[in-house]
Amino acid sequence: MNGAESLVRTLLNGDVNVCFANPGTSEMHFVAALDRVEGVRCILGLFEGVVTGAADGYYRLAGKPAATLLHLAPGLGNGLANLHNAKKARSGIVNIVGEHAGYHIQYDAPLTADIEGVARPMSDWVKTSHSSKTIAADGALAIQVARTAPGQIATLILPADTAWGDADGPAEVAAPALRAAVAADALAKGVRALKNGKATTLLLGGAALRGKALEWAGRIAAKTGCGVLSEFNNARIERGAGRAQVRQLSFVVERSLEMLKDTRELVMIGAKLPVSFFAYPGKPSVLVPKGCEVISVAAAEVDLEGTLEALADELGARNTAPLVNAPGYDGALPTGDITLEKLGAFFNAAIPENAIVLDEAVTSGRAFSGATMGARPHDWLNIMGGSIGWGLAAAVGAAIAAPDRKVIALEGDGSALYTQQALWTMARENLDVTIVIFANRAYKILLGELNNVGAGAPGRNANDMLTLDRPDLDWVTIAKGYGVEAGRATTLDELAVQFKRGLAAPGPYLVELIM
Amino acid sequence: MNGAESLVRTLLNGDVNVCFANPGTSEMHFVAALDRVEGVRCILGLFEGVVTGAADGYYRLAGKPAATLLHLAPGLGNGLANLHNAKKARSGIVNIVGEHAGYHIQYDAPLTADIEGVARPMSDWVKTSHSSKTIAADGALAIQVARTAPGQIATLILPADTAWGDADGPAEVAAPALRAAVAADALAKGVRALKNGKATTLLLGGAALRGKALEWAGRIAAKTGCGVLSEFNNARIERGAGRAQVRQLSFVVERSLEMLKDTRELVMIGAKLPVSFFAYPGKPSVLVPKGCEVISVAAAEVDLEGTLEALADELGARNTAPLVNAPGYDGALPTGDITLEKLGAFFNAAIPENAIVLDEAVTSGRAFSGATMGARPHDWLNIMGGSIGWGLAAAVGAAIAAPDRKVIALEGDGSALYTQQALWTMARENLDVTIVIFANRAYKILLGELNNVGAGAPGRNANDMLTLDRPDLDWVTIAKGYGVEAGRATTLDELAVQFKRGLAAPGPYLVELIM
Repeated sequence: MNGAESLVRTLLNGDVNVCFANPGTSEMHFVAALDRVEGVRCILGLFEGVVTGAADGYYRLAGKPAATLLHLAPGLGNGLANLHNAKKARSGIVNIVGEHAGYHIQYDAPLTADIEGVARPMSDWVKTSHSSKTIAADGALAIQVARTAPGQIATLILPADTAWGDADGPAEVAAPALRAAVAADALAKGVRALKNGKATTLLLGGAALRGKALEWAGRIAAKTGCGVLSEFNNARIERGAGRAQVRQLSFVVERSLEMLKDTRELVMIGAKLPVSFFAYPGKPSVLVPKGCEVISVAAAEVDLEGTLEALADELGARNTAPLVNAPGYDGALPTGDITLEKLGAFFNAAIPENAIVLDEAVTSGRAFSGATMGARPHDWLNIMGGSIGWGLAAAVGAAIAAPDRKVIALEGDGSALYTQQALWTMARENLDVTIVIFANRAYKILLGELNNVGAGAPGRNANDMLTLDRPDLDWVTIAKGYGVEAGRATTLDELAVQFKRGLAAPGPYLVELIM
Repeated sequence: MNGAESLVRTLLNGDVNVCFANPGTSEMHFVAALDRVEGVRCILGLFEGVVTGAADGYYRLAGKPAATLLHLAPGLGNGLANLHNAKKARSGIVNIVGEHAGYHIQYDAPLTADIEGVARPMSDWVKTSHSSKTIAADGALAIQVARTAPGQIATLILPADTAWGDADGPAEVAAPALRAAVAADALAKGVRALKNGKATTLLLGGAALRGKALEWAGRIAAKTGCGVLSEFNNARIERGAGRAQVRQLSFVVERSLEMLKDTRELVMIGAKLPVSFFAYPGKPSVLVPKGCEVISVAAAEVDLEGTLEALADELGARNTAPLVNAPGYDGALPTGDITLEKLGAFFNAAIPENAIVLDEAVTSGRAFSGATMGARPHDWLNIMGGSIGWGLAAAVGAAIAAPDRKVIALEGDGSALYTQQALWTMARENLDVTIVIFANRAYKILLGELNNVGAGAPGRNANDMLTLDRPDLDWVTIAKGYGVEAGRATTLDELAVQFKRGLAAPGPYLVELIM
């Protein structure tokens, strides 16, 4: 058995059985080992941003890491933006990055570069495994790191001679560690805040937005009258009718300030201090009002379900009916011309039961979150690191992780273009993904931001850099070039027809919505 | 005047008047300054790999740096692979990377990450400019670094508050330093080697492959009978009928070994020690035969034209007629089914006078270099860092730098897909680029490499990761989606029609050649 095979068998020992891949020459022994050993599903991405974004989407649904297979420093570089998004989402990923044989590096061949240097900014852990005898143990360590709650980016660098040299066999992988319990004093502070009658808001993040944890939060809200917010972006939130009411903070500074202005105590469970996405001249970075006490009860890596259950118990809310969203999906579909308000109402009515919605709609999508709280129960996934080009790639991973669920990707046109190669993977794997492209033919968010930062109205150069017209991108045609069926909608009535067609198709379908 | 404007005016002082850009919120003041100050041509790339690849292609033709404008660490990450290619090409680029306002970084907003860390592996120089008063001077320094022969990657990080704060004005930019003269002892060693009667080969790299330098090499070869080789890849080589005969080393280890096997003295002018692209079990990394003396007369940053002229003088070759390629373009175009041999003959006859050819044809293109030495005089540009996704992007930059010349991009399908967003920029800017996609619907090079590394024949997983079929990419349709006219060829006769149509079109045209 060579090093590569010992690593593949170690991945299987650690229940890592999906590999999103874009290999090169230095990874060929690993590719051959994936042939010899049964059990790893290999999915090709035609660009590394697809590979790493898919691994992020996969983790958010599967709750366990996939492996990626990447080719040297530049291949890793191509995957870096979506590793950034995954790291901010606290997703677990085991990156396997091929490297030249150790003895070859000194010759500075064309593809030689500092892989560890490229990996470090977007990884929680980086290691080069210099021997075929140690790669299995290093692989086991990488899996353990990736599985550390809530999830971490582990990058294992695999020199070609480590892959092709002799190994002793695979390594055992330690079971994932249990999440730490909430600290008693932090819990007590949270209880006090929720009992003392001051205006208090729960700010939930990470695993607090799902399952039982979310339900406990709903009971606490019903019992105490506290507000319940989530961060502006969330890796995965279970929402819709019958689920606990959670309002999302806004990208727009003024709106978040408004949402928080009456709060005297902010109780954070798995969330971070709310800050603005960007800095703007004359606007605050921190969105918490003056005089508001901030109480971090539990960080993202803590047992958040246990934390909320304990809070509920202390507050006598164990048997309180949770405050939940009322169904809002029964109205007729809105018709006629497209407006953002009507689009929100459309998705509120049209999201199917148990769907997975990936939201990279950027400007067009800002109102969707608030408008779809009463939709049929579904999961909603945000881009967490703000680096566009995430949605289509993550949809690949979500669909691989949850093959029986409808996946819906809401995409800005500028964002979708970054990793549009994901369409091909969707076609090859016949993934059940319905994509809606909001084609406003601009980096519309930036036309607003130019004004927000006080830089004035766009002139010729700014306009050239912030618009996607001249020529207009034709998304229906691009999709067909990748083997994905597609249709165009210019009204809500056409959107209804197209969206239905997408959901009915067993494979991918793209709707270009002209804004 | 704010910091952003002082930087734009400094760029103009340094003759940097093209900016390939993909900006975000943190760059909005810089974008606004590009509006206010006349003189910088801004070209939008819909993905950062297009931006950095274009800057590489631009430098190779213009001989001076362009600026890039990139958005925070992930935007830089997306451009990293083509910065790697540019760094290996020794191209000069001034990267301007936006950063959060300094006071905002502590809050770890979604897009916060270690920009310097991402930049360092693919940059020769990295600096964060912390004040609006210093950004002009830092910009001048960045230009100076980028212009250091043969060219360097300078990455200047521009925090938003540095851009929007008050500045004193632009900075002066020092004139580019002259290249160092060749060292006398190194020159003497080279002369001795070329005079002593042993089998000697000149290995040329960088600027030695162009203009007068190349001509001197041709005279030396005619006078001494030495061989003349170039490295396997070259940033830019002037070739074709009437130009000095230079054979390129091969990607295939065995072929390079064969080309060098009789050489007893290898005289390197602007070139590096020839090594294999990858390491293969049982094959050497260094391609120079045992007992061959390696003499590095001048590194890439030295005055190579002066070096070769001095060599020619010492050898009495000043007035010797150079050994040049005979015209080979007069034959009839080959017809019928497509073979690699016939394709070589086709391009030998079809490359128009003064064309710029970008070669990222990978497997299909290996024979083209040797087959087209007798074509009409042209420039030939190789991908220098081996990170695919270079050709279409670099073609954008080459066409901007040389608007009066025909640009021809020879592209593997796997490679072209990495930065196919470049098609849109070609359409918007109406760039005169003819693209030929060699559609073998596989990472065909890797199917060969699997065997080369001794990993055996591909099984199911390997085949899934090394082929681009199921579904086939439809390049004609994809191109049309980006607003680029396109046609398909399945025979050499069809290729002749399509290639002619491409050359006749004033804007971009794509030919999908089914292999």
